[in-house]
Amino acid sequence: MQRDINSYIASGKERLEKELTSVLRNKAIPSNLHASMTYSLFAGGKRLRPILMFASYDTFANESDKVLKTATALEMIHTYSLVHDDLPAMDNDDYRRGQLTNHRKFDEATAILAGDALLTYSFELIAQDALLTADEKVYIFQALAKASGAEGMVAGQILDTEGEEKDLTLAELEKIHELKTGKLISFAITVGAYLADVDENRIQHLKQFAYYLGLIFQVQDDILDVIGDPNKLGKPVGSDEENEKSTYPNLLGLEGAKKQKATYEKLAKEALTQANAMDSYLLDLLYFFSQRDH
Amino acid sequence: MQRDINSYIASGKERLEKELTSVLRNKAIPSNLHASMTYSLFAGGKRLRPILMFASYDTFANESDKVLKTATALEMIHTYSLVHDDLPAMDNDDYRRGQLTNHRKFDEATAILAGDALLTYSFELIAQDALLTADEKVYIFQALAKASGAEGMVAGQILDTEGEEKDLTLAELEKIHELKTGKLISFAITVGAYLADVDENRIQHLKQFAYYLGLIFQVQDDILDVIGDPNKLGKPVGSDEENEKSTYPNLLGLEGAKKQKATYEKLAKEALTQANAMDSYLLDLLYFFSQRDH
Repeated sequence: MQRDINSYIASGKERLEKELTSVLRNKAIPSNLHASMTYSLFAGGKRLRPILMFASYDTFANESDKVLKTATALEMIHTYSLVHDDLPAMDNDDYRRGQLTNHRKFDEATAILAGDALLTYSFELIAQDALLTADEKVYIFQALAKASGAEGMVAGQILDTEGEEKDLTLAELEKIHELKTGKLISFAITVGAYLADVDENRIQHLKQFAYYLGLIFQVQDDILDVIGDPNKLGKPVGSDEENEKSTYPNLLGLEGAKKQKATYEKLAKEALTQANAMDSYLLDLLYFFSQRDH
Repeated sequence: MQRDINSYIASGKERLEKELTSVLRNKAIPSNLHASMTYSLFAGGKRLRPILMFASYDTFANESDKVLKTATALEMIHTYSLVHDDLPAMDNDDYRRGQLTNHRKFDEATAILAGDALLTYSFELIAQDALLTADEKVYIFQALAKASGAEGMVAGQILDTEGEEKDLTLAELEKIHELKTGKLISFAITVGAYLADVDENRIQHLKQFAYYLGLIFQVQDDILDVIGDPNKLGKPVGSDEENEKSTYPNLLGLEGAKKQKATYEKLAKEALTQANAMDSYLLDLLYFFSQRDH
């Protein structure tokens, strides 16, 4: 069967959003808190992490809803991180994806609590999943907490904040990206494979693939801030340069950044070959991430 | 054997703090984040929730470390909630227990992230606990997420914030306390009993006990803000009156508040009798909560 990555992404997005809508229904959540959580969950996210998880699972198993709740939990974690990241004390952003950020739409206290609630709820969602065994849940809990916590995503955020004031080396930049976005991408791919009963050896290769995929995502993000189309991106370009942010283009020049992306692509494909998963949506997503224009 | 509640509390505190010290050791956590997490974990907490969990477990089983990691996770959740609660956008407190609050000692971004990290780490701690079965872990995850999330503690915090501007009824005040502090107290007592293999019927009675215990804790808090000794409390009194906060004394008068406390005590003891647990540290802790002077 011919794979069509665009329709795969569209259907994955729909599937995820249907689930997101249903899980918060009929909950005893105070209305303002519920509105704030829902607002950010449906503020135009691309759902890339859940889609990666679907793709990884579908590569190795027949399609089922086995990863659906975990993918939904993952999107909640990602959303909470954006809500907190946008706060005045952090990035102080008024808009994200063309819409008011949570604390601008509601208020700061509500945004902090909505983020806390989304993070907490993601664990509840997995605990309640009727399609997973207790052992699988414990595996996922451990992986998710590790990926998103003080040794993972939160570590990346603090290093990112601290790094704003200095010139980073390429290795330091890679480390921040690995923690801040790479860990959740890796969670999506490796746990998707784990739930499809993939053996540990192949999971290690997929982890490598996820590592480079995360870096490709970031280098393309940086490149788009230089040469992207503001209309397609839904935000102005050139802000990284203006803020003297450490980015691939600032560190290596635009051509150097493109070369670095090509290197990551090569290494990602090698890892995917070793995982014996080249004939998959994971490969298509690699190209999609690398060539995206928004 | 004669029970000595003061030495029980002291040894529980020591046991908990030893564990708290060891679990964050040798972790790949950025130093500033690690310092911020550790600062609030050791900022003079009374460890009442873990001690309640120990007491509940010890009432029904022989002492072991089976609840130790869960009690530690619970204290982390409680600590994260204080760190976020103290933030400028929330209560805007500069001091807690006579020490600088986290965002005043570090900065706001670090305090937000340290809170997030503590919350996340609490789940990791339980996932890694070698003394629990997978089924027990899943039960705990579900109970902890429910107690601390959008239908529990976080709900209480948002209702508390919203309630500041209006006159609450007794029922509304009880509801906020039940969510904001009662849910974690209930978690401590019911999960402690669950891990001691107590049957569901008795757990329901213990849940009732926990409900009234939480309210006793709060009414005493309110009473101390009127007639407490600032030196013992480590903070000035009279702030509730000044802030026109809805409290038991403001709602019922000082004598009315004391009467209400006596009513809660009676109901708490009835529940404890039905749980067949009157001969226990839980009863001692009831008196301790009710009569504390700080």
